[in-house]
Amino acid sequence: MSAARQVVQRILAGREFQANGTAKAYAPANIALVKYWGKRDEALNLPVTGSLSISLGPLGSHVELARAESAGDRVWLNGQPLPADSSFARRASAFLDLFRPAKDFGFALKARNTVPTAAGFASSASGFAALAKAADGLFGWGLAARELSILARLGSGSAARSLADGFVEWQAGTAADGLDSFAERLDAEWPELRVGAVVLCSDEKPVGSREGMKRSVETCEFYREWPGRVARDLAALKTAIAKKNFAALGEVAEGNALAMHALMAATLPPIVYALPETVAAMRTIWTAREAGLALWFTMDAGPNVKLLFEAKDESRVREIFPAVEVVAPFG
Amino acid sequence: MSAARQVVQRILAGREFQANGTAKAYAPANIALVKYWGKRDEALNLPVTGSLSISLGPLGSHVELARAESAGDRVWLNGQPLPADSSFARRASAFLDLFRPAKDFGFALKARNTVPTAAGFASSASGFAALAKAADGLFGWGLAARELSILARLGSGSAARSLADGFVEWQAGTAADGLDSFAERLDAEWPELRVGAVVLCSDEKPVGSREGMKRSVETCEFYREWPGRVARDLAALKTAIAKKNFAALGEVAEGNALAMHALMAATLPPIVYALPETVAAMRTIWTAREAGLALWFTMDAGPNVKLLFEAKDESRVREIFPAVEVVAPFG
Repeated sequence: MSAARQVVQRILAGREFQANGTAKAYAPANIALVKYWGKRDEALNLPVTGSLSISLGPLGSHVELARAESAGDRVWLNGQPLPADSSFARRASAFLDLFRPAKDFGFALKARNTVPTAAGFASSASGFAALAKAADGLFGWGLAARELSILARLGSGSAARSLADGFVEWQAGTAADGLDSFAERLDAEWPELRVGAVVLCSDEKPVGSREGMKRSVETCEFYREWPGRVARDLAALKTAIAKKNFAALGEVAEGNALAMHALMAATLPPIVYALPETVAAMRTIWTAREAGLALWFTMDAGPNVKLLFEAKDESRVREIFPAVEVVAPFG
Repeated sequence: MSAARQVVQRILAGREFQANGTAKAYAPANIALVKYWGKRDEALNLPVTGSLSISLGPLGSHVELARAESAGDRVWLNGQPLPADSSFARRASAFLDLFRPAKDFGFALKARNTVPTAAGFASSASGFAALAKAADGLFGWGLAARELSILARLGSGSAARSLADGFVEWQAGTAADGLDSFAERLDAEWPELRVGAVVLCSDEKPVGSREGMKRSVETCEFYREWPGRVARDLAALKTAIAKKNFAALGEVAEGNALAMHALMAATLPPIVYALPETVAAMRTIWTAREAGLALWFTMDAGPNVKLLFEAKDESRVREIFPAVEVVAPFG
């Protein structure tokens, strides 16, 4: 039995696997302000460090889950039936294997993303989080949020952070089975906060996150200092959130994203996600900031840039980045 | 007395300070393949790590040095007299202070760079190296190459590497006075090697190297791993040179340059020298390499890119970078 399936059995010990009708669930996408880069366990998606994200409210994934009429899963994405060998259907089925009551039990899964697929926000975090919630609903387990976070993590690491709204911190944990590695909402509100997606390229990444992280952990000397950097950034970010100090939040998020991309560049062979347009956007942001605009950015494992600003500056930000997709994480 | 002046007195102990006529000297510019980033002593320009460069043959600095007719230095650069308060004249005079026999002893210095000033090669290394040699000639000290390397280093760290042709290794040393921190030529020839300068921007740097290094040493956690990275890269580069393995040389040089820029990006506040054009040039190089061209790059503390290739590929490189300035370091 796989390590992930063993963890699932531990969490679900004594619970029924009786499917009831159709379960619906929603989970938001999230964007990390202090990043997750590097696993201590590949099979369980256990991270080397903690991370802290902001959930994207209405941008996320809706799923409906039911028992299919026969063996084999049926998967729809955004209204379209998918071939069983499509990348999305295979990842979904592999995740559903963790909860499958019997070999001949097929799932019918309908997923719909409100994350604009071309907006540069990942939908795998919200997708696996919604799927974990839907499985909980279908079988009536009544799991706690932290248990759902653990289950979602088994599908995709950052999905652990998509079980809650607002600011969410994922604890790295130390246990080998990862039962202490889950995410929880911080007790904080920041209604004025805005996240803006600037899409510079929607091509597929040359190096996927899973492969890139592995290479950094194995070949990048700087990686040894990454846990210390993250610990410092997490502490500074939590202070910034507690004090609602936007410049401090922006500074930590931007510095942490640049440090993650630095790790990637110092990896062997080097991984550089930035495009010319990425550097141009960074420089535009710095120029605007020098001129007094409270605008910062973060970047994930790709060439796109996400803006961080406050509601009062939205029109100025839209002047600079007319194509920006703006999200109000606190509604 | 300054720490630098004390070191000079130790090196010149017992020697005369009698100026004889006009001394002429030349030193080549150099480009590091394993970089120097970070000082262990600011006053003496002592580096934290070793570094290894290639001298640029005919691109460098010619200087003529004589006693001026009265107190106060007279400085010419490329045929033009410079005001005493110009940046170049002030740096030259501060360096000459280290050897000035008496307060009323003025130097007449004529410097001429064959490094095209807009080509993105630094001329300070060749300038201070040539000046150290000219002072040696003017006063007739007859210093050894390693002593000249130490003197040149007091003007600019990387000048330590401009006293020899070919591949030059600068030992970091451990002594507090830096008398074991000098550079020497490696016993290796590589006539086919070419270095190409691609100038993307000739504006002044937003953050100078001296300031940038200091900030990295003080604020960048990753800096703790830089000495280990440099040690590994130096060993790999020396093996590549000994075996004349060009792909290995390129891989080490490009990876080391990216790692140095990674250090800069992880510094607080972050230092990013890359421009959109820099990333575009990097991607052009990677695309050409994927298509089979043995082309690599290195970058210093600025946005410009230096190409590394072999003579047989020069025409293909010129097709891709028509404005490239090509140097044959071994003549």
